[in-house]
Amino acid sequence: MLTTWNDGAVKSAIVDFVARITRAGGPDFVRPAERIAVFDNDGTLWCEQPMQAQVFFLIDRVKQLAAADPALATRQPFKAFLEHDHATLHALGKPAIMELFMTTHAGMTEDEFDVIARQWFAQAKHPKLGRPFDRCTYVPQVELLAHLREHGFKNYIVSGGGVDLIRAFAEEAYGIPREQVIGSSAKLRFEIKDGRPALMKAAELGSFDDREAKPQNIGLHIGRRPLLAFGNSDGDLAMMRYTLGGPGPRLALLIHHDDAAREVAYDRDFKLSPLADALDNADGYGITVVSMKRDWKVVFEGKT
Amino acid sequence: MLTTWNDGAVKSAIVDFVARITRAGGPDFVRPAERIAVFDNDGTLWCEQPMQAQVFFLIDRVKQLAAADPALATRQPFKAFLEHDHATLHALGKPAIMELFMTTHAGMTEDEFDVIARQWFAQAKHPKLGRPFDRCTYVPQVELLAHLREHGFKNYIVSGGGVDLIRAFAEEAYGIPREQVIGSSAKLRFEIKDGRPALMKAAELGSFDDREAKPQNIGLHIGRRPLLAFGNSDGDLAMMRYTLGGPGPRLALLIHHDDAAREVAYDRDFKLSPLADALDNADGYGITVVSMKRDWKVVFEGKT
Repeated sequence: MLTTWNDGAVKSAIVDFVARITRAGGPDFVRPAERIAVFDNDGTLWCEQPMQAQVFFLIDRVKQLAAADPALATRQPFKAFLEHDHATLHALGKPAIMELFMTTHAGMTEDEFDVIARQWFAQAKHPKLGRPFDRCTYVPQVELLAHLREHGFKNYIVSGGGVDLIRAFAEEAYGIPREQVIGSSAKLRFEIKDGRPALMKAAELGSFDDREAKPQNIGLHIGRRPLLAFGNSDGDLAMMRYTLGGPGPRLALLIHHDDAAREVAYDRDFKLSPLADALDNADGYGITVVSMKRDWKVVFEGKT
Repeated sequence: MLTTWNDGAVKSAIVDFVARITRAGGPDFVRPAERIAVFDNDGTLWCEQPMQAQVFFLIDRVKQLAAADPALATRQPFKAFLEHDHATLHALGKPAIMELFMTTHAGMTEDEFDVIARQWFAQAKHPKLGRPFDRCTYVPQVELLAHLREHGFKNYIVSGGGVDLIRAFAEEAYGIPREQVIGSSAKLRFEIKDGRPALMKAAELGSFDDREAKPQNIGLHIGRRPLLAFGNSDGDLAMMRYTLGGPGPRLALLIHHDDAAREVAYDRDFKLSPLADALDNADGYGITVVSMKRDWKVVFEGKT
């Protein structure tokens, strides 16, 4: 049971929690329908260093689009993006980032995006790990997901990443079906395209699924307060606090990336998704901190 | 199998469809993960006449709130609503309706609303059927939901009704868990209330889940095109067309309320949710029309 986790307080806390809420007739028994677990994705279920897979996907897509339409490369913000002109990108600000996302993640049907995403996963490689992105998942977490599933849990991903990119690989990589993925999303528009009813991904943000939006989207999509939440940044804190706010036993876990040898050691200085408040005040919040270095026997598949 | 459905073309179409997509090794086999069925609620799974349960709930809630705060009854739109002053209500228009909904369905936490909804279901009675609202469900539909579930389907409700009211009874009445209910919703706001992290229902519309919004919300929440859709009004047409637009066998069913003896005969003149386009053009859309009179052996529990 959880053979890829090292024995210790954290592993015991997880195993004991699951045993406690599934013990039939016990005081803390929770019926299967209420066994909801929520996981952040980037940095919690797979590697987010040096940047989230989403960003690598964005870069590859802008290059593909510019190759098909050279005029794009002469327009901002694409010109600055392709030329690594960070100063101009910074000056263009948030609307530029939004335009980059919308151009690469919208303006096509859901079905069309799914094909693009799957093609990308089939070809792209993580620059540091040298393997497909969908094989940059954390082995102990995949084992934990299976352990929870075997004990009647429904596992959800609740990620700041784009929902459709995650849906394209989550079932195979994590055993998490598409309908159990909540993420950032573009608004969808029902249209008849080429005579066929389809959902167009509009160039308008639906939800940026980070911080307070995480529990809010849990309420919208799931309608139950989770029993267990797992995150790795301050973006996951609201979701963890919401989880812990329910009656009866609850468990909130926070990965601390403290393993420079096997992955990367980082927390408050990672600008794309910092960890400070949740780590500094974990005790006060009732959050269990998982040390990658101390608690995981292995990190990535095929490596220790 | 489907013993509360009369033999005939419609029952055969349903039974054959399910057999076809579940036959292992068959040309139309669909793996269980992709077996999604979506059902409208009002008029499809339970009675919506003379008004939707949502409206009766709204009336009872306004009365309760006015009893607790008499000043409310002197303010519009509540005054007009309580005095059945339709002319004034009509003149106040959509913002007034929205205020009635937001006052009764928002300004409290999700947990608090759930308690209110369950108390209402425990006490309120349908004015015509003389039984609790959650026992105004259609017996043949409850049997169909079970038939689909036994064949590996995940059944979803996709309703114009408020998601939290439906979630309060759907699991018991239909075997549909809270996370498989999509409906109209207020925006949620993560807050610390009385020291406890909670989701507040804000007085702002999140989604009015009708017409085009139905397939759009299916895309957001489920991320798969359904195999089967069941509705009863033009509000369900986009969802039915989206379902039929996928490859391989698909089934879209439309209840025609043509049974004045056992329920109510109505379609295009029911202002709260008219049926015209979907009925008039069912053949062209590829929609199978279900006649309540012809196809259902019983309608309500304990009655034929």
